[in-house]
Amino acid sequence: MSKETASNARMARSDVSNARNALERYSRGATPRPLASAGGAGVDTLASFVESLMSGSIDVIDLTQPLSEATPMIQLPPPFANTPNWRTHEISHYDEKGPAWYWNWFEGGEHAGTHFDAPIHWITGKDRDDVAQVPVRRLVGPAVVIDKSREAQANPDYLLTMNDIRAFERQHGSLPEGCWLLYRTGWDTRANDQKAFLNANETGPHTPGIDIDLARWLASESPVVGVGVETVGTDAGAAHSFNPPFPCHQFLLGANKYGLTQLANLAKLPSTGAVLLVAPLKLVKGSGSPCRALALVQR
Amino acid sequence: MSKETASNARMARSDVSNARNALERYSRGATPRPLASAGGAGVDTLASFVESLMSGSIDVIDLTQPLSEATPMIQLPPPFANTPNWRTHEISHYDEKGPAWYWNWFEGGEHAGTHFDAPIHWITGKDRDDVAQVPVRRLVGPAVVIDKSREAQANPDYLLTMNDIRAFERQHGSLPEGCWLLYRTGWDTRANDQKAFLNANETGPHTPGIDIDLARWLASESPVVGVGVETVGTDAGAAHSFNPPFPCHQFLLGANKYGLTQLANLAKLPSTGAVLLVAPLKLVKGSGSPCRALALVQR
Repeated sequence: MSKETASNARMARSDVSNARNALERYSRGATPRPLASAGGAGVDTLASFVESLMSGSIDVIDLTQPLSEATPMIQLPPPFANTPNWRTHEISHYDEKGPAWYWNWFEGGEHAGTHFDAPIHWITGKDRDDVAQVPVRRLVGPAVVIDKSREAQANPDYLLTMNDIRAFERQHGSLPEGCWLLYRTGWDTRANDQKAFLNANETGPHTPGIDIDLARWLASESPVVGVGVETVGTDAGAAHSFNPPFPCHQFLLGANKYGLTQLANLAKLPSTGAVLLVAPLKLVKGSGSPCRALALVQR
Repeated sequence: MSKETASNARMARSDVSNARNALERYSRGATPRPLASAGGAGVDTLASFVESLMSGSIDVIDLTQPLSEATPMIQLPPPFANTPNWRTHEISHYDEKGPAWYWNWFEGGEHAGTHFDAPIHWITGKDRDDVAQVPVRRLVGPAVVIDKSREAQANPDYLLTMNDIRAFERQHGSLPEGCWLLYRTGWDTRANDQKAFLNANETGPHTPGIDIDLARWLASESPVVGVGVETVGTDAGAAHSFNPPFPCHQFLLGANKYGLTQLANLAKLPSTGAVLLVAPLKLVKGSGSPCRALALVQR
């Protein structure tokens, strides 16, 4: 052991002399990149990105709600079947079942907590991609954030409309190609309370959403690849009684676009300029998946 | 409906005129960015990144194995407890239980398929972060790929050593600060076959790994934040009989660093210059999580 320690100490000293400018060289692209195209301005973009990331001028924001047995879950009325609550079971915890290790197994739904809706989730997308088939290029892209938290606080049934998009575009420019539309409603503050989150009464759940015309436009005409929300689903709580019902699901998934739900920390994002990283599990034939959602923002 | 369609058509026409240069303006940072610092070269880094992403000069590679009931799972000998195989249960499939929707629930382990080891997974990291506590900044970073697939094909017990790191650094420069070390062994070709993947005989499993000295150096002295492998775990198949046993788990997790396993497509990455995005679920008190792992590469 002491021989190993001495050897490591020697290695450490030589590393210090080697390592001083390593990040700088790496960021400048001075190290070989076998798969990069030769020369050209494009070669440096990813290196500049890494440099900004390591220096903190690009920050990473977690848009994901914690996932546990307390995570609110959508509740459908009979005769529809529901997803079970998340449950965790210990396998070992530094004990006789595993002296040096702790781990669990779990039961949960594809649409539990912060999660991704794949096109195949809806009958209109039944011949489209399952969650494992979604092209990974579409999991990383620009994000715009439309904030209607004031409106949703005043009216829990608030519906985003085409007029809201027009107003946003007048202020911030047109929605960029391949973007994610993130719809802030302030609903994230209710995310640790099933009752407040679903906000149901005798007429059903009352949570903000998107109106029929806008859902159709987002699906068929907009440059948006997906819609992200803070609520339990992309559709409004009252969308069971819309015509058609659940228009976000019907139109967006039918158009091979995506949904992303139960997001956190949208208040920390700029209206434009953030990048969304959305990472569902690669569940074979999955209709969706609990996922991690992160955002990159420029400081 | 026809009124809506006409309205949408009008919207579409005005969009075409608005949208032509939208991506370009967005990428240049001409649109307001409320949270960005004013001016300075840094403001454009993320916009340039988006531009490269949308143009395809930055590509996204999926490093994740498909997750299903066929996913190989580690098998520990008695008296240790094992993680159950992944199992999927249908909730509804465009049927009476959900006429317009298809979804499943599942049972599975925190260490199933392509997965992330959090520090708390090992007793040496018991006071460190669980998977939900891992700082998200450490989930996005530069990646280096060391290819020992030829050596592992010749010797399934091949162990990566400090000499291999020295040789890599002579060719490619020092390991960059905050990087992920991705260790290619060609084991991904066995990932759809539990028997070939675990490669066990009467003396136990035989899969490539990392030797004790290197595991200690990676944990305590290197700039690496985590180690990613193609095998079922970061440690070699024979590491149960090392002294100490399972040195990657013991040293790396004890140093608040991470493991990433069952990776795919490492052959598509350059030796240096890629960026790893690793996205475990935000499992409260989780010891790890099945995850999506993606890489960004410059074309």
